[in-house]
Amino acid sequence: MSDSTPASPPLVTRMVAEAIGTLVLVFGGVGTALYAADFAVGGEGTPLGVGHLGVALAFGLTVLVGVYAWGPISGGHFNPAITLGMATAGRFAWKDVIGYIVAQIVGGVVGSTLLVLIGLFGPDKWLSTAQSGGFASNGFGDHSPGGWGIGAAILVEIILTCVFVLVVAGSTSKRAPVGFAGLAIGLTLTLIHLISIPIDNTSVNPARSIAAAIYGGVGPLGQLWVFIVFPLVGGLIAGLVHRALFPEPELA
Amino acid sequence: MSDSTPASPPLVTRMVAEAIGTLVLVFGGVGTALYAADFAVGGEGTPLGVGHLGVALAFGLTVLVGVYAWGPISGGHFNPAITLGMATAGRFAWKDVIGYIVAQIVGGVVGSTLLVLIGLFGPDKWLSTAQSGGFASNGFGDHSPGGWGIGAAILVEIILTCVFVLVVAGSTSKRAPVGFAGLAIGLTLTLIHLISIPIDNTSVNPARSIAAAIYGGVGPLGQLWVFIVFPLVGGLIAGLVHRALFPEPELA
Amino acid sequence: MSDSTPASPPLVTRMVAEAIGTLVLVFGGVGTALYAADFAVGGEGTPLGVGHLGVALAFGLTVLVGVYAWGPISGGHFNPAITLGMATAGRFAWKDVIGYIVAQIVGGVVGSTLLVLIGLFGPDKWLSTAQSGGFASNGFGDHSPGGWGIGAAILVEIILTCVFVLVVAGSTSKRAPVGFAGLAIGLTLTLIHLISIPIDNTSVNPARSIAAAIYGGVGPLGQLWVFIVFPLVGGLIAGLVHRALFPEPELA
Amino acid sequence: MSDSTPASPPLVTRMVAEAIGTLVLVFGGVGTALYAADFAVGGEGTPLGVGHLGVALAFGLTVLVGVYAWGPISGGHFNPAITLGMATAGRFAWKDVIGYIVAQIVGGVVGSTLLVLIGLFGPDKWLSTAQSGGFASNGFGDHSPGGWGIGAAILVEIILTCVFVLVVAGSTSKRAPVGFAGLAIGLTLTLIHLISIPIDNTSVNPARSIAAAIYGGVGPLGQLWVFIVFPLVGGLIAGLVHRALFPEPELA
Repeated sequence: MSDSTPASPPLVTRMVAEAIGTLVLVFGGVGTALYAADFAVGGEGTPLGVGHLGVALAFGLTVLVGVYAWGPISGGHFNPAITLGMATAGRFAWKDVIGYIVAQIVGGVVGSTLLVLIGLFGPDKWLSTAQSGGFASNGFGDHSPGGWGIGAAILVEIILTCVFVLVVAGSTSKRAPVGFAGLAIGLTLTLIHLISIPIDNTSVNPARSIAAAIYGGVGPLGQLWVFIVFPLVGGLIAGLVHRALFPEPELA
Repeated sequence: MSDSTPASPPLVTRMVAEAIGTLVLVFGGVGTALYAADFAVGGEGTPLGVGHLGVALAFGLTVLVGVYAWGPISGGHFNPAITLGMATAGRFAWKDVIGYIVAQIVGGVVGSTLLVLIGLFGPDKWLSTAQSGGFASNGFGDHSPGGWGIGAAILVEIILTCVFVLVVAGSTSKRAPVGFAGLAIGLTLTLIHLISIPIDNTSVNPARSIAAAIYGGVGPLGQLWVFIVFPLVGGLIAGLVHRALFPEPELA
Repeated sequence: MSDSTPASPPLVTRMVAEAIGTLVLVFGGVGTALYAADFAVGGEGTPLGVGHLGVALAFGLTVLVGVYAWGPISGGHFNPAITLGMATAGRFAWKDVIGYIVAQIVGGVVGSTLLVLIGLFGPDKWLSTAQSGGFASNGFGDHSPGGWGIGAAILVEIILTCVFVLVVAGSTSKRAPVGFAGLAIGLTLTLIHLISIPIDNTSVNPARSIAAAIYGGVGPLGQLWVFIVFPLVGGLIAGLVHRALFPEPELA
Repeated sequence: MSDSTPASPPLVTRMVAEAIGTLVLVFGGVGTALYAADFAVGGEGTPLGVGHLGVALAFGLTVLVGVYAWGPISGGHFNPAITLGMATAGRFAWKDVIGYIVAQIVGGVVGSTLLVLIGLFGPDKWLSTAQSGGFASNGFGDHSPGGWGIGAAILVEIILTCVFVLVVAGSTSKRAPVGFAGLAIGLTLTLIHLISIPIDNTSVNPARSIAAAIYGGVGPLGQLWVFIVFPLVGGLIAGLVHRALFPEPELA
């Protein structure tokens, strides 16, 4: 995704960069949701927690800073739907797709495992409460923050992942100004969370969904397929739309 | 609006880009207002909804990311008042104005229709409540969030659209640093919403107003003309002021 | 302040740009404080107003976007303390200082006058309540939002204006990367408001203080001198510190 | 950290720049926590304080603007863990490490001392309450905002400082786009605070921890070693990881 990569490092180095970036995405986004969104009211009357706005900002910033920090190595996907979409768009080599996705899933799982580890030193019953509350997993129906159904989750995941991958592909194209892609991509993820946290806690990223669900109990695990399949569908659609809009061939 | 467009794609491709961008603007901004602004208080005491601040951020980010993602194709107007203002300023070809505005209106309507479609899978009575509440339409008097009159709505729309289009024209001029226009333009829309959501729910964009009003019932539809006419007036004034401030002829 | 001004327009054009920018600063910042900071709680439990965080963001964004929009014409000061500080730093021509400051004061007053005009169409008693509450003027003692004394106001204005002007001079120097000054300067004003709204409602800009005080009644007018004198003192100190830190002679 | 430093100024000038930047970091971040995070509820129902979200933003903005303002002189570390990490990464001269760290500690202490000085003019008992509340120091156990233990503090400081220094080293490398480092680094500090304020009030910077603890009483002082040792450990690890990821030798 970075606009100024001189020569591509070996796949294993790029996979480490993808793993670190996805680790930070999960640690930062899911961590803010679990540790910081809800907090006590101060003595003067201001509730101190960062709310859904803070969670939306945190998810976006993980990607914004990740693109500038590790994008110079790997391109900065941190998300299987982006990797698939960019390959579909003709902007990423198909032969590296599996390696990237494996690295992203591993990085995400390490991220949520660190959150659990820290939770062992939390306030009384913090960890068991967080896990029985779903560990900030994605969900619909009984597991939707606002009580939205599976149809809403499917539509939202397809539409918003499609928008996300279109921004990735457009803002990193040769037609776009150099350097601004990280800003645009990160803030798109903030925008996506602003819209859709109440609906399904916002995925648009199967690696993020897997990382949270493995600590979220039976309910979120049973719904996990929705947050693997439909972000990938959205990414695929975006790849095809991008090819139609930006006809010039270019490989990132 | 993008600073680095190599060669202009055909009008139909640019119209698709304008439609997608305006779709995202309405889906993201109006969607955040409907789905996410108001939400329950958490167990520790923090109200989780994103409030007017989150809505202001969402509207601005739709445009910020849109300029980087689809601006390289169409210039990234997503708003009839900008298209008219830029043509008046001598920075956009008059012959493409109608095509752009049609695309923006169509894109906006698709955006709000998707919001309705998702609403069909919402919590009990969610959609009927959202529609009877005006579907986040613009309004004055009984339809103003804070009870402000038509005079306030007219002044605010003229002044803020004029500021908006002046920022668009100034930040994309040859005198401005390359690449920062998307940042400046998007954050101007955030600023505009920070000031004026309580007054008339903030238009400065007839396509956004039309998209919401068609699902907002008789009241907002009856007031819609105000949010078509006065943003356009503001855009026109900005175009004339820009010509006086930036005398060099340049076509974006 | 812009990093890429080709040739300087005539003083009168630059004064118009300074007036417009300061108008937007007052309209946006003071307007958000008056219209949008405090608002009702939604039905689900989220207070919808943007609070001090929204006001801090609004003030910063007025300057951020102003530097990109009108900075290419005038340099984008919008503040007598910046004009004085940049002249002291040897980065702005002394002969233009008076013209800039007059334009800034006029622009600011037009901005607050527009806020009053819109207030005439506000909810019942809105305008008289806003004016008897000080019209978001700066103040200390009884006129401080949090009850802070004149000593706190003086220290805060000197320190924060000094920081502000140091950022302006440093981020627009030849050593800094091109184009980022608007971002840095605008976000510094947000930072400054985050710290100090509770203390004295944050000036660091005599033009902003004058614009609000003329509609704020006897109390704020009697304290206005503090918010004229000490921001200028802070700007002067910054000019001298900048000369010591950045020894290369350069005229913006 | 700046991407465009022409020739390095003398060490003493760079130390002054580091001291000013760290002063601003402490004054802005700790100041927002003390003066502005918690504030009364407005008459319409909005709590006006900026909460943890405002504090997170303030800390991040101090560094973002500092990198653009003083980074052109010193590189913009403002943090002993960054200086140590960059030296370990082979990107900063070991001979200047002590000078930088001394300057950072001095600057931070001046920053918190100014906060105390202003507090002398605060509302009745403001200063004694702020000091008996720990003066926004870092802490665990009884001194953790949310009651988290020392294990959580240690893990969080190591992990987040490591992420912070990896972003610094990555975004300022020759592979990254020029100019965006300040944006990425500052917003990383915002992200870090979004995640971890409830756990230990967020250090990742020994100079910030020292500056607050000296006015925070016996409790925070007794825990201070944790917030000196583990940020440095995180910075060291990051330096080693960076060398593995970015094999090209380069000295900032």
